[in-house]
Amino acid sequence: MFTIKNHLEIENSRLTIGGVDTSNLVNEYGSPIYVTNEQRIRDNFRRYKKAFPDADLFYAAKANGNLTILKILAEEGAGADVFSDGELYTALLAGIPRDKILFNGNSKSDRELLMAVQTGVRVSVDSFDELNTLSSIAKNEGKVVDIAFRVNPDVSPKTHPKISTGLKTSKFGIPHDEVVSAYKQALDKPGVNPVGIHCHIGSQILEVEPFVETVNKMMDLVEQISRLGVEFEFVDIGSGLGIPYEKNIEVPTPNDLADSIVPIFNERCKAEGINPKLVLEPGRYLVGDSAILLTSVNTMKNAAKKFVGIDAGFNTMIRPVMYDAYHHAVVANKADKNAEDTYTIVGPICETGDIMATDRELPEIEKGDVIAFLDVGGYGFSMSSQYNGRPRCAELLVNKGDVDIIRKAETYADLLANQEVPPRFL
Amino acid sequence: MFTIKNHLEIENSRLTIGGVDTSNLVNEYGSPIYVTNEQRIRDNFRRYKKAFPDADLFYAAKANGNLTILKILAEEGAGADVFSDGELYTALLAGIPRDKILFNGNSKSDRELLMAVQTGVRVSVDSFDELNTLSSIAKNEGKVVDIAFRVNPDVSPKTHPKISTGLKTSKFGIPHDEVVSAYKQALDKPGVNPVGIHCHIGSQILEVEPFVETVNKMMDLVEQISRLGVEFEFVDIGSGLGIPYEKNIEVPTPNDLADSIVPIFNERCKAEGINPKLVLEPGRYLVGDSAILLTSVNTMKNAAKKFVGIDAGFNTMIRPVMYDAYHHAVVANKADKNAEDTYTIVGPICETGDIMATDRELPEIEKGDVIAFLDVGGYGFSMSSQYNGRPRCAELLVNKGDVDIIRKAETYADLLANQEVPPRFL
Ligand SMILES: Cc1ncc(COP(=O)(O)O)c(C=O)c1O
Ligand SMILES: Cc1ncc(COP(=O)(O)O)c(C=O)c1O
Repeated sequence: MFTIKNHLEIENSRLTIGGVDTSNLVNEYGSPIYVTNEQRIRDNFRRYKKAFPDADLFYAAKANGNLTILKILAEEGAGADVFSDGELYTALLAGIPRDKILFNGNSKSDRELLMAVQTGVRVSVDSFDELNTLSSIAKNEGKVVDIAFRVNPDVSPKTHPKISTGLKTSKFGIPHDEVVSAYKQALDKPGVNPVGIHCHIGSQILEVEPFVETVNKMMDLVEQISRLGVEFEFVDIGSGLGIPYEKNIEVPTPNDLADSIVPIFNERCKAEGINPKLVLEPGRYLVGDSAILLTSVNTMKNAAKKFVGIDAGFNTMIRPVMYDAYHHAVVANKADKNAEDTYTIVGPICETGDIMATDRELPEIEKGDVIAFLDVGGYGFSMSSQYNGRPRCAELLVNKGDVDIIRKAETYADLLANQEVPPRFL
Repeated sequence: MFTIKNHLEIENSRLTIGGVDTSNLVNEYGSPIYVTNEQRIRDNFRRYKKAFPDADLFYAAKANGNLTILKILAEEGAGADVFSDGELYTALLAGIPRDKILFNGNSKSDRELLMAVQTGVRVSVDSFDELNTLSSIAKNEGKVVDIAFRVNPDVSPKTHPKISTGLKTSKFGIPHDEVVSAYKQALDKPGVNPVGIHCHIGSQILEVEPFVETVNKMMDLVEQISRLGVEFEFVDIGSGLGIPYEKNIEVPTPNDLADSIVPIFNERCKAEGINPKLVLEPGRYLVGDSAILLTSVNTMKNAAKKFVGIDAGFNTMIRPVMYDAYHHAVVANKADKNAEDTYTIVGPICETGDIMATDRELPEIEKGDVIAFLDVGGYGFSMSSQYNGRPRCAELLVNKGDVDIIRKAETYADLLANQEVPPRFL
């Protein structure tokens, strides 16, 4: 038995996760299938928390909104960053305390704001317009909502442009030079109580410098705004710490991140004589490497490349197509075999772009083999669809040899769910 | 009243579809919402059929797999190109005759091939490996399946690279120089009966030349293969005729396409003394412009741009983000007003890339306005997801003033459907 990547091991040539043989999982539960290792999420959370003992960690539910996964994180003490009414609903159902939930979003509907007010969670306000709406909704309900403003810090981390969220041109947040005036307005309005400040510069960031720049910019604002009379209970710098999808890249750890920002944060709070909580919103880091996607080889083809046709495409996991993302691929039933050939692994979707992995050196692959994609726990199932008429797949939770189904596979009935044929067609 | 685009009209300043006021639809049925005009689908089909009176039109169900829409096309006499077991299931349920269904796909599972054999539809075989599998499954079932091979014709239309499917490097089809040998093998195998040939060069193609090249290449093959003793019942050249998403572009019509390829097809069949049916697989052309997506303005923001925050993002319609697709935007409740400003319309999803329309000249927009995106009937709802914890939206069918719900909006319950929390977490 030897370790392939973190919590994954190889036993008798076969990839195992959480003490369970992956090939057996496919035989028993079907394919494709997402498999999450509970212990890995707990370990990731504890590692992050240990690096930031005084901070609150608000798990970004968008990374993986499965109810059981939220419950695991709730047990560990996580709060939640939610981005919609549906995420708020699920987070509350999972038992995440309402004072540890921040309702984020650049385009919240009145219905969503009302739900935030009624459930008593905090709101990160993204625009002046939203401030006005929220104020009047809260006033109407006879409530006062604790708010932060989402600030556009104008910081450019190196990551995929689609997920670099703190650029000056981005749709998110209050422009940097209007933030102070936003707090002034909030202080004058009924129904809203400014107690925090929030930003998020992007996702899958592989260096700490942009975070240092962010903390400094945020603390500059905190200083100015504190002098207006705002008492900051929290400073939320969002998330974005990347994970090593590719084997040989260097990635900062939560410790590295903490070492470079916590001293600055503490020092600047001390200098200002204030005591806000630092909040972070990790998503990918907590769940990303906890899950694998198991897929089966349907068909082999020698054409322009050696194509391996599997049963999961961008309907099941869109990251390779959408962000050119790399996910390490392992032939799960030949996990200790040497590479013998170069394969391109493609899904069953009707588009040329439906390629899951290009030019990978792998052991000889045959029909019936099981391919595991690693690090699919974040932005995997949560972005899946029924495109090409394919029911969405199941999700399993494994833990120390035990297996639980945490989401059953959809059936044809789920494709037709909610559909109604007008009687004149019958 | 004046016409804005094909079947859409403006009455009292408001956009109407199928004789129905769009603003009323949002008030009554919620937002966002897809609205399809039944008559437009029928008109599109009839226009295509009139251009190709002797051809079979196999609707590409992937473009829009709604059961009612399949039923409309079934009534019009369409067959279906299906790309999965789920699409096959829906097409049969909609009453499309099995001899007019072609099961396509580059990576079919054994279960899918068995379903094709059992339901008696035709199969487009994508690889030698699939040929072997299908032959033994059919033999096992004591059946003989009518097949075509999907050919990679090595033709390069100008379109988005993700949807250009007939390039030499693509994952689809049998390489051009191996096609003859594929038919030879098929003739020798039990359970399979080669009766057709199939290709598809891409989608949203805006010129006819690539289709002319395709027909010529396909007929070269048909000539060679006929001499092996294969009696072609059909020659399926796939689909790909684009539609004018942008107002001022020239797009070939089905008539233009027919004028340029039918004479070649007929002449070459005559020369060879054969009489196969021409088959086309239109998807986008039949349904694309039949539907609009109605969305509501949640919030306005002046930042780097004038951002209009609406309630539909790439969870609801992924084409703008995935293919840089343009969809014309109309302020549905101010449809006859002059443009007064330049707006960028963004969705509620947590990514910078979630932009539905950039720098559009539009009438003054306020919170509560309804924005209609045109031409969303193809690859719209069918690619939608629950990303960011957002239930998928409803679909309406309108027809000459009548409104039917053909898919109810999902609820929070649908986010949790099929989920199961292991008892130890309760
Ligand atoms: C506001 C906000 N917070 C947190 C996250 C989570 O980021 P990550 O998964 O990179 O940790 C996101 C991701 O988009 C976000 O938009
Ligand atoms: C095999 C096949 N046929 C038909 C179509 C439909 O193409 P369009 O919607 O451009 O008409 C597609 C689209 O991907 C396809 O893959």
